[in-house]
Amino acid sequence: MNKGLTRFLYGGDYNPDQWSEETWSKDIHVFKEADINSATINVFSWALLEPEEGKFNFAKLDKVVTELSEANFSIVMGTSTAVMPAWMFKKYPDVARVDYQGRRHVFGQRHNFCPNSKNYQRLASELVEKLAERYGDNPHIVVWHVNNEYGGNCYCENCQNAFRVWLKNKYHSLDNLNKAWNMNVWSHTIYDWDEIVVPNELGDAWGPEGSETIVAGLSIDYLRFQSESLQNLFKMEKRIIRKYDFDTPVTTNFHSLPNKMIDYQKWAKDQDIISYDSYPTYDAPAYQPAFLYDLMRSLKHQPFMLMESAPSSVNWQPYSPLKRPGQMAATELQAVAHGADTVQFFQLKQAVGGSEKFHSAVIAHSQRTDTRVFRELTDLGQKLKKVGPTILGSKTQAEVGIVFDWSNFWSYEYVDGINQDKNYVDSILDYYRQFYERNIPVDIISVDDDFKKYDLIVAPVLYMIKVGLAEKINEYVAKGGNFVTTYMSGMVNSTDNIYLGGYPGPLKEVTGIWVEESDAIVPGHKTIVSFNDHDYEASFICDLIHPGRAKVLAKYSNEFYAGTAAITENKYGKGKAWYIGTKLQHQGLTQILNHIILQANVESVIRNGAGLEITKRITENGQSLYFVLNMSKKKQELPSELRDYQDLLTGKKARQKIERWDVQILISK
Amino acid sequence: MNKGLTRFLYGGDYNPDQWSEETWSKDIHVFKEADINSATINVFSWALLEPEEGKFNFAKLDKVVTELSEANFSIVMGTSTAVMPAWMFKKYPDVARVDYQGRRHVFGQRHNFCPNSKNYQRLASELVEKLAERYGDNPHIVVWHVNNEYGGNCYCENCQNAFRVWLKNKYHSLDNLNKAWNMNVWSHTIYDWDEIVVPNELGDAWGPEGSETIVAGLSIDYLRFQSESLQNLFKMEKRIIRKYDFDTPVTTNFHSLPNKMIDYQKWAKDQDIISYDSYPTYDAPAYQPAFLYDLMRSLKHQPFMLMESAPSSVNWQPYSPLKRPGQMAATELQAVAHGADTVQFFQLKQAVGGSEKFHSAVIAHSQRTDTRVFRELTDLGQKLKKVGPTILGSKTQAEVGIVFDWSNFWSYEYVDGINQDKNYVDSILDYYRQFYERNIPVDIISVDDDFKKYDLIVAPVLYMIKVGLAEKINEYVAKGGNFVTTYMSGMVNSTDNIYLGGYPGPLKEVTGIWVEESDAIVPGHKTIVSFNDHDYEASFICDLIHPGRAKVLAKYSNEFYAGTAAITENKYGKGKAWYIGTKLQHQGLTQILNHIILQANVESVIRNGAGLEITKRITENGQSLYFVLNMSKKKQELPSELRDYQDLLTGKKARQKIERWDVQILISK
Amino acid sequence: MNKGLTRFLYGGDYNPDQWSEETWSKDIHVFKEADINSATINVFSWALLEPEEGKFNFAKLDKVVTELSEANFSIVMGTSTAVMPAWMFKKYPDVARVDYQGRRHVFGQRHNFCPNSKNYQRLASELVEKLAERYGDNPHIVVWHVNNEYGGNCYCENCQNAFRVWLKNKYHSLDNLNKAWNMNVWSHTIYDWDEIVVPNELGDAWGPEGSETIVAGLSIDYLRFQSESLQNLFKMEKRIIRKYDFDTPVTTNFHSLPNKMIDYQKWAKDQDIISYDSYPTYDAPAYQPAFLYDLMRSLKHQPFMLMESAPSSVNWQPYSPLKRPGQMAATELQAVAHGADTVQFFQLKQAVGGSEKFHSAVIAHSQRTDTRVFRELTDLGQKLKKVGPTILGSKTQAEVGIVFDWSNFWSYEYVDGINQDKNYVDSILDYYRQFYERNIPVDIISVDDDFKKYDLIVAPVLYMIKVGLAEKINEYVAKGGNFVTTYMSGMVNSTDNIYLGGYPGPLKEVTGIWVEESDAIVPGHKTIVSFNDHDYEASFICDLIHPGRAKVLAKYSNEFYAGTAAITENKYGKGKAWYIGTKLQHQGLTQILNHIILQANVESVIRNGAGLEITKRITENGQSLYFVLNMSKKKQELPSELRDYQDLLTGKKARQKIERWDVQILISK
Repeated sequence: MNKGLTRFLYGGDYNPDQWSEETWSKDIHVFKEADINSATINVFSWALLEPEEGKFNFAKLDKVVTELSEANFSIVMGTSTAVMPAWMFKKYPDVARVDYQGRRHVFGQRHNFCPNSKNYQRLASELVEKLAERYGDNPHIVVWHVNNEYGGNCYCENCQNAFRVWLKNKYHSLDNLNKAWNMNVWSHTIYDWDEIVVPNELGDAWGPEGSETIVAGLSIDYLRFQSESLQNLFKMEKRIIRKYDFDTPVTTNFHSLPNKMIDYQKWAKDQDIISYDSYPTYDAPAYQPAFLYDLMRSLKHQPFMLMESAPSSVNWQPYSPLKRPGQMAATELQAVAHGADTVQFFQLKQAVGGSEKFHSAVIAHSQRTDTRVFRELTDLGQKLKKVGPTILGSKTQAEVGIVFDWSNFWSYEYVDGINQDKNYVDSILDYYRQFYERNIPVDIISVDDDFKKYDLIVAPVLYMIKVGLAEKINEYVAKGGNFVTTYMSGMVNSTDNIYLGGYPGPLKEVTGIWVEESDAIVPGHKTIVSFNDHDYEASFICDLIHPGRAKVLAKYSNEFYAGTAAITENKYGKGKAWYIGTKLQHQGLTQILNHIILQANVESVIRNGAGLEITKRITENGQSLYFVLNMSKKKQELPSELRDYQDLLTGKKARQKIERWDVQILISK
Repeated sequence: MNKGLTRFLYGGDYNPDQWSEETWSKDIHVFKEADINSATINVFSWALLEPEEGKFNFAKLDKVVTELSEANFSIVMGTSTAVMPAWMFKKYPDVARVDYQGRRHVFGQRHNFCPNSKNYQRLASELVEKLAERYGDNPHIVVWHVNNEYGGNCYCENCQNAFRVWLKNKYHSLDNLNKAWNMNVWSHTIYDWDEIVVPNELGDAWGPEGSETIVAGLSIDYLRFQSESLQNLFKMEKRIIRKYDFDTPVTTNFHSLPNKMIDYQKWAKDQDIISYDSYPTYDAPAYQPAFLYDLMRSLKHQPFMLMESAPSSVNWQPYSPLKRPGQMAATELQAVAHGADTVQFFQLKQAVGGSEKFHSAVIAHSQRTDTRVFRELTDLGQKLKKVGPTILGSKTQAEVGIVFDWSNFWSYEYVDGINQDKNYVDSILDYYRQFYERNIPVDIISVDDDFKKYDLIVAPVLYMIKVGLAEKINEYVAKGGNFVTTYMSGMVNSTDNIYLGGYPGPLKEVTGIWVEESDAIVPGHKTIVSFNDHDYEASFICDLIHPGRAKVLAKYSNEFYAGTAAITENKYGKGKAWYIGTKLQHQGLTQILNHIILQANVESVIRNGAGLEITKRITENGQSLYFVLNMSKKKQELPSELRDYQDLLTGKKARQKIERWDVQILISK
Repeated sequence: MNKGLTRFLYGGDYNPDQWSEETWSKDIHVFKEADINSATINVFSWALLEPEEGKFNFAKLDKVVTELSEANFSIVMGTSTAVMPAWMFKKYPDVARVDYQGRRHVFGQRHNFCPNSKNYQRLASELVEKLAERYGDNPHIVVWHVNNEYGGNCYCENCQNAFRVWLKNKYHSLDNLNKAWNMNVWSHTIYDWDEIVVPNELGDAWGPEGSETIVAGLSIDYLRFQSESLQNLFKMEKRIIRKYDFDTPVTTNFHSLPNKMIDYQKWAKDQDIISYDSYPTYDAPAYQPAFLYDLMRSLKHQPFMLMESAPSSVNWQPYSPLKRPGQMAATELQAVAHGADTVQFFQLKQAVGGSEKFHSAVIAHSQRTDTRVFRELTDLGQKLKKVGPTILGSKTQAEVGIVFDWSNFWSYEYVDGINQDKNYVDSILDYYRQFYERNIPVDIISVDDDFKKYDLIVAPVLYMIKVGLAEKINEYVAKGGNFVTTYMSGMVNSTDNIYLGGYPGPLKEVTGIWVEESDAIVPGHKTIVSFNDHDYEASFICDLIHPGRAKVLAKYSNEFYAGTAAITENKYGKGKAWYIGTKLQHQGLTQILNHIILQANVESVIRNGAGLEITKRITENGQSLYFVLNMSKKKQELPSELRDYQDLLTGKKARQKIERWDVQILISK
């Protein structure tokens, strides 16, 4: 049992290594000016800590920790294992990853260690042991930050050997493996474990850069194996830390939209607290980060850390406009609205050199504090100082669960057929947006989550159905649950073999239908779906459905299958299941979801909030905090229900006219 | 002398290996329901047949053969050499191909053997020997199907050594080779055979992915050598089969649009019957497969097998809409209309796994027969059962030959100059389409074909003129033939050296003209050609022509060469030669071809058939079968000449109004 | 001291190696018909000169030299070291370059030698020694042409070792190096020289094809090192030549737009005369080659050789239309107008084979002289024969200097941030075009040039400011100079570390401003800049400027920074400095430059020349030659000032109406 966060952290990555020691105290002074109370340190310091193998030097780090501690900063302590020192590449070339083309990396990048390198494992363990031993009892360390943004696969000999062992443990016999991977297709039958070859551009690749694969079962298992291999590194570091520090939360920072290579749901149980690095691009719709925050919160159904975010522009994006006045605070508080219990930046001080030197920071290159960005950071700091204690630990409740599953992500996007434009995250976002726009709270859940908690479960393109999942869904619906699924669902088992007998395979039972054919809608074409006497456009894929026991909600109104079912609704036990056989454009999907949401009787956090983003967090003493954000381009009106509420940020009455980027945290007076 | 086909085959690829033995008899039962009478088996079974080197296991294959034989199926017997078992890669790494970047393949894909690997040759021979010995006298085997879809080049050491030997045999001396490849350019002179390096991305490549090359002579010879190397593999297998089976036709399945790497014309003589895999994309115009079928028929001037085609969608195409009702039968019968004597599918039963699991099949994943696709397959089966015997062996006659030449294909597309948008097949299709739309039968002929058979020979972009070809053309025209050629013709000899003295080199004689300059028309621009007082657009390249002895048919009417000849006509002996100096858009080319066709006096199969595709096959007893297909998007009228004909498919009077996808096979009553 | 050119050369590359000896005299005869007086030979003949190591054969070359000498041709003598013979790759694989992916080249291409290969250096030296010894005293050799179009980097072990030595010499200690490259970022600290790894796709690469890099300091130093390595090869050859030939000018041909990999300014001091290969694409605006010619002239502030150019189409460009009637002469004379003292073509005779066989030539494939191109070449030859002696050695004077700097080129384009669409040359061209359109003479100068010569210095995106440069600029302005700079200036030192304290760093002093933030303008968006009550569009980057001491010339009129300074003017000492904080579109930039040019009091070569390109060269006896070219698409009027001038080309009075492509060289009568 870890002790959790005891303070709402406001801070971020700080790299004193890059600066002379004399400047540190001045930096800390500036941070405090902005009410910053936390710093993440030692994320990339291995080369300085261990200039040669076995010789450690903690003098600098000691001093940093001391200065921060004396300034009463909460320290997020990195373990520095994400970048290997140059000497390590020279001494132990196997520590470097081998890419999909079979080429070994050389010194120069970061995040390029092989997870199955014994040398890397040993050297990283030694470093972490020293760190944990030295700082394990420092009370200012409030979180351990292991490694950094894990991700990326390795295809080396060591991984290949480890993969064969992993497969033996999973399948026990080659017979099982050949069956699971259906290896008699194209004469791929394996007769010896050492005949198994890891995915490779010159092997099983199919399509550009291995976007498709000859043996999907192998590739999917390899992704599972690699995700687990990296997870084992995390667990290795955590075990060492726990020898010296029994209760400080240990985490690693998750990232991307989300990262495809890492099964965060599988990793979540090992994280004491989820932490996430958030970098939406300038043109990302506001519901995209909202989705990601909801995903992060749902991983442990607990508040998470916003471990990294940008004070203004993000250098490594193709185009990175400045955050507009108010935008920084709005986007940071959006994370809090969805469950973040920290606001942390990359970075506290802008680097002089290196590839991220144009990434924005609290202390910019100008090193001045009379700047717009610093003023806005200070303003936010003051606000968080005020509201942080109230917010910390408050919870979110959702009646809707949207299913997101990494194995499905992998297998669905490997599919070679029907229509190449498959994008799992976008398919989920189509549905997430529906609830976002209605301010209906949503959890983003795994297939292993407890379904019973939800009134409505939405599982778009649930292509892969592992053993037991269909039964779980059936039971959920039979007992009164509401379930939505779509085209490209119920098709394969966990090793990507088709369920015979008609799609959606094991979901035929609950949906009551079967799909005879699936038409590809080619680019530039649209199919028309008719619902309640209105026509809506659809694209991508159109399922030709035999409605069977189900009721037909909407029909196609063009193509040779005009008049046949496009969307169905099936009563099953005490609940209902909907099958949406095509990719409806937003307007049409909105109509269908209106119908479904009404049936499922799930509600918005607040009525009449259209145009605003409104979430609710409930404090430990049961008080409701309404986060009201205007992430749209237009001025909006406060919903009448909240009219008499008070804004926690200002201590004043709620503003009725809400400008762009304005944020209020409302409580009833 | 092989015995040819004795039955019109309806069937396709069947992979019982992928299924439990209990299901086979049920499958066969379903096939028979659809009047399927043939199965292609053992295409990808090497790993099962030979689980370790020298240990063979034919139990499963024996059973398959027995069951199919007992069901009176005609068996197309694969040799399984297209995919090497995993153990072979491990034991003999040299069996795997090396790519253009010099990287050796690993286990995982298919079609990746090195044609010059002695290990591959030995192991494939041993397998084929066992197969031929065991099944060589089985009367149900009606065709041997060697390997599968040969294609793709290898760049390994073994190939390099074999290439050097091949070159010695071709050129005898380095002096000859240096001259042939013009190696004094850029100091590339070779002084020792072992200085010759195969084409390589890090060697002679020029332009992205070797699209261009420093020494075209070398690259073209390498393509010839690789095509021959693969051809030798085919011949090796065939020789072995012939030791045990003296007269069953042996073939391998040709493919692509067409495959650039394989000189099918050179291969044709070794094929007892041509077989072809046809997968037009959803947006391919109907004349594209028609062209390919005519090419396949012309390879041996005999009917061919449609070895593979899709019952509905093709999974590996980017977008694969369902075949619309009637479309499958129309597209299959289109092949028959152009000379196919079989209708075969990939695949008879849809796989549960593997990268093609979403490719359509006779038995789909639903494993139901109450489906649209199965009904259409059954309907076609019944029709073919009725008409197959009449069609089988019937011939096609053409008065027009369009020249298609693989060496020209290679050399033309390597050209670095004038305009980069060179596409040999598209240039041929421009002209093919002209005859297709007029229902004028065409053979697609090689430069070695007998020209005298034709009233009109069209040779677009005949860039490469090998020794004797110009003389052959001259003689053909002198004796009364009609010959059309275009820009980018007559430029180089067989090793890509320019004919000096003005383009079109040796074709100056017959065309009577010479080309002083060739202008590139850049994207977005058009040149105007004036013919019979009308203006037509042209693009790509404009030759500036000195008409010399020839008559000017059309002139440019813009650019600085306005008023000069664009198209010429030359009387030569008893015949005529046309030179079309630019890429005319369809409308303009139609006008010019109207003129030429009138002059050459070649005729449509039937008058007034515009909008319909109409071909004629003549049975052994001299009866004319008119295939009338509506491949257009609109309803069409039957030409009056055919009004009183009878439809062989229905036994009824010809339909006068012809819907989209409708097909009739008409005979005079 | 070299003797310079004594004759205006008209000729180009001639490769008699590719032809039988009998044809040579006929070729020379044809060249003379066109008044060609020069040939560049022996550029690619190593394989013929040295068929095996140490065995030389000069028979052919002797004969070529003799024939050309007897015909009184000026010979430009190549050294043939740009293409290595095949035997060299076989015998010494290390002579071949290793690419950015770490892959070694094989025989096949050209320009692929490793500059740090001792074998290459030794073998090239031996060849050049033989050549210089043999031909060093031939009076017909007027220029030595070393190697060919140097360029391209090598990443091999030899280069890596040499780079480490180079770094030791530069930085003396690893401490210095770590600081210079800011290696504590991302834990890249180096503890041993042999830990340094050259740039590599699998190392420090960031972004596609290494377009960005993790450690910019390393990558920039590597570019410096590679440019120097190739420069050392040039110097090595020159030293050898000078042993035998004390005063014939030695050069190598520069190329590209310009070549990014070679710091031509650093190379210039070793060139006795600059020579340049000019191949503008068909769609390049006329100011682009003008800029390049001005750059070449400015490298030594002397006339240069136009070493290569195309008589008509350029085969290796994607689309290469014919040069229109008059266009060839106009484009050749444009080079002369900007300072060329030769007109030379690639190539004198069109090759029969090889990848450039479709490149235009004086003797084309037709080998006829009754062609348009040959007539135009002859016409130009006659003209140059007449005017060449007058032009030869004449000088250009410019009051404006535009700064172009290779280190800036490299560092600026490595920047990862703000807006990815960085293009250094285009940024310079924006400003060059302003002076070009006004016919104001411009030198393209290095940061090491003498600034005092100029009334106005324009330094767009002067991102990198090396030690002393800011002081030099300050002094220049203080003493009365006028200085223009822009966004993305003054940001880093010579190893790419940021100048802290606010942009534009050391240029804050002279510009009087500081930049707080820089906004990225995303594709499809525009920012508006208001100047003199008119609105102009801007894009790419908008600096948010604190004008400080400077006067605000223009403001933004949209975005949240509407009303703040976009362009400023600062009086500094006796001069002025302008800061242009955004990328103005052409129209707006024209208005600003009108203002600045007026202030700086720099003048056009001639008034009222808009629409025409007009330059002035001043002969040794002080006569002004006005080159008047119509490079526009419309007919233009001669400026009145030149009305009574005489055209040196025709000997007649100047033409008042000037057609497209018309060129006059006007002198006052």
